[in-house]
Amino acid sequence: MTTLVFGHKSPDTDSTGSPLIWAWYLSEIKGVAAEAVLLGEPNTEAAFVLERWNLEKPRIIETVEPGQPVVIVDTNNPAELPATINDADIQGIIDHHKLVGGLETKGPIEIRIEPLACTATLMHKMIGDDLKNAPDNIKGAMLSCILSDTLEFRSPTTTSEDRSVAEALAAELGVDISAYAAEMFAAKSDVSSFSEAELLRMDSKTYEVGGKSFRVSVLETTSPATVLARKESLMEAMPVVATEDGADQVLLFVIDILNEEATLLVPNDLVRTVAEKSFATVAGDGDLVVLPGIVSRKKQIIPNLSL
Amino acid sequence: MTTLVFGHKSPDTDSTGSPLIWAWYLSEIKGVAAEAVLLGEPNTEAAFVLERWNLEKPRIIETVEPGQPVVIVDTNNPAELPATINDADIQGIIDHHKLVGGLETKGPIEIRIEPLACTATLMHKMIGDDLKNAPDNIKGAMLSCILSDTLEFRSPTTTSEDRSVAEALAAELGVDISAYAAEMFAAKSDVSSFSEAELLRMDSKTYEVGGKSFRVSVLETTSPATVLARKESLMEAMPVVATEDGADQVLLFVIDILNEEATLLVPNDLVRTVAEKSFATVAGDGDLVVLPGIVSRKKQIIPNLSL
Repeated sequence: MTTLVFGHKSPDTDSTGSPLIWAWYLSEIKGVAAEAVLLGEPNTEAAFVLERWNLEKPRIIETVEPGQPVVIVDTNNPAELPATINDADIQGIIDHHKLVGGLETKGPIEIRIEPLACTATLMHKMIGDDLKNAPDNIKGAMLSCILSDTLEFRSPTTTSEDRSVAEALAAELGVDISAYAAEMFAAKSDVSSFSEAELLRMDSKTYEVGGKSFRVSVLETTSPATVLARKESLMEAMPVVATEDGADQVLLFVIDILNEEATLLVPNDLVRTVAEKSFATVAGDGDLVVLPGIVSRKKQIIPNLSL
Repeated sequence: MTTLVFGHKSPDTDSTGSPLIWAWYLSEIKGVAAEAVLLGEPNTEAAFVLERWNLEKPRIIETVEPGQPVVIVDTNNPAELPATINDADIQGIIDHHKLVGGLETKGPIEIRIEPLACTATLMHKMIGDDLKNAPDNIKGAMLSCILSDTLEFRSPTTTSEDRSVAEALAAELGVDISAYAAEMFAAKSDVSSFSEAELLRMDSKTYEVGGKSFRVSVLETTSPATVLARKESLMEAMPVVATEDGADQVLLFVIDILNEEATLLVPNDLVRTVAEKSFATVAGDGDLVVLPGIVSRKKQIIPNLSL
């Protein structure tokens, strides 16, 4: 049976590109029939990357059958995977997030998690010399994943390994990193076609803080004003999304990639309290607060979130 | 703060030797202060290995403090670790068992799990060329772990990688594998000093099957008759141990290493039913049944356990 390789729901560039990289490696190098699939529509940046490198968009699946061989990449969180994931035949996990618990395997399998900015960087290390056999579009996907997850090396999650892999790939492919990253981020910033609810769910993870459940959503953009112009309707959509998704509150952080700061929408006192208790420097007293230097949910938002 | 490296409770040779190997690697190669510790008394084989290679017995700890940096080896199962493990600062997990879920980390860490027979084999790969700087007793620990977990390559868990690493280490150390493994297994078989309850708990893992909770205990020995001579008192101790440990039934498999077969003690109809439903060939109609070819709990007993 063909092994399905996929990342998390609401696929970003890493969760779209890394399955393509690993499915290439399994099928072309390891001789294991494998197919990259998606658990939802790729975001606008990921869609741009697919087109830029002439990569066919993987088909989208909603569920996995019991016993289906799968490799999970870019997450180890059951909440970000199909509900039936533990009935699948999980053959491998490749990730760079904290271990959240909940995934179970029927026997010992290969699991590789490292504190790198990007799954593709870890795959680069695991593939090793065999990468010389990869076509340019696989290397391009790898470069794109790293530039996306590191925000072109601006994110504090960036390691020297992420950076050196990306720089080597860019040199080999003849890609100007700054120009290409700007194109990627412009694609990500074009959110005109999305509804408010879609924007709130696009890059969102649920966390429990102080007995409450928060949907912590980030929107990375080079054009924060475009998003903030919709703040009223975004705040109106928050209670609807929270109720539908079983959370108490949506927190929306609009990440200004170029100026390296976040703007948090403040629809009520609960969110204002979270902002003041969580971050040292909070500028703004209306329904927007600016958090200077904050760009990473993983490294800067989640570890500090308090109520 | 010194990083503590430990394996599971009821330490066998791999859970005693692998922490010593990794603490050496962290402190001598990576420059991270690290100490191997144990979560209980090592079994008789592990104690023999420590003495044979002049390795100091690691101190035994019962709990870990919140925030204590730890590396967990040879397990990823919270039930086999201190109750407070998720409050510790888990910095790494190196294992060769199935993912059971339940461990959580505060941030992304290095996790490496592979379907090898032995944790030490995986460490051999992770340490790579730096192993040339290891003293003989660290290499001796590595060899001992592999011979123990593979039952000198008899167990079906054995991979070609386990075997080739052990053979290379033995050649370098001038160790005759057969003679040395025989000494190790003789040490493991000397169980005269243990009470019945201790024997039932020495190498035991809890599994749920058909709504019941079984403590699945194995005793690997070159002298099964010595253990089976105590079958009456072992069966008498079973309900006591089961009640104390919150299980419905203890299953004791006496593994004959040299003849590659298991003898299961059958104290009641429940265990007889488990034996008949779980194994194709069950010889014996009294309070002992022989299971030809069965030597591995991980590969042969657990995957087949039925009720």
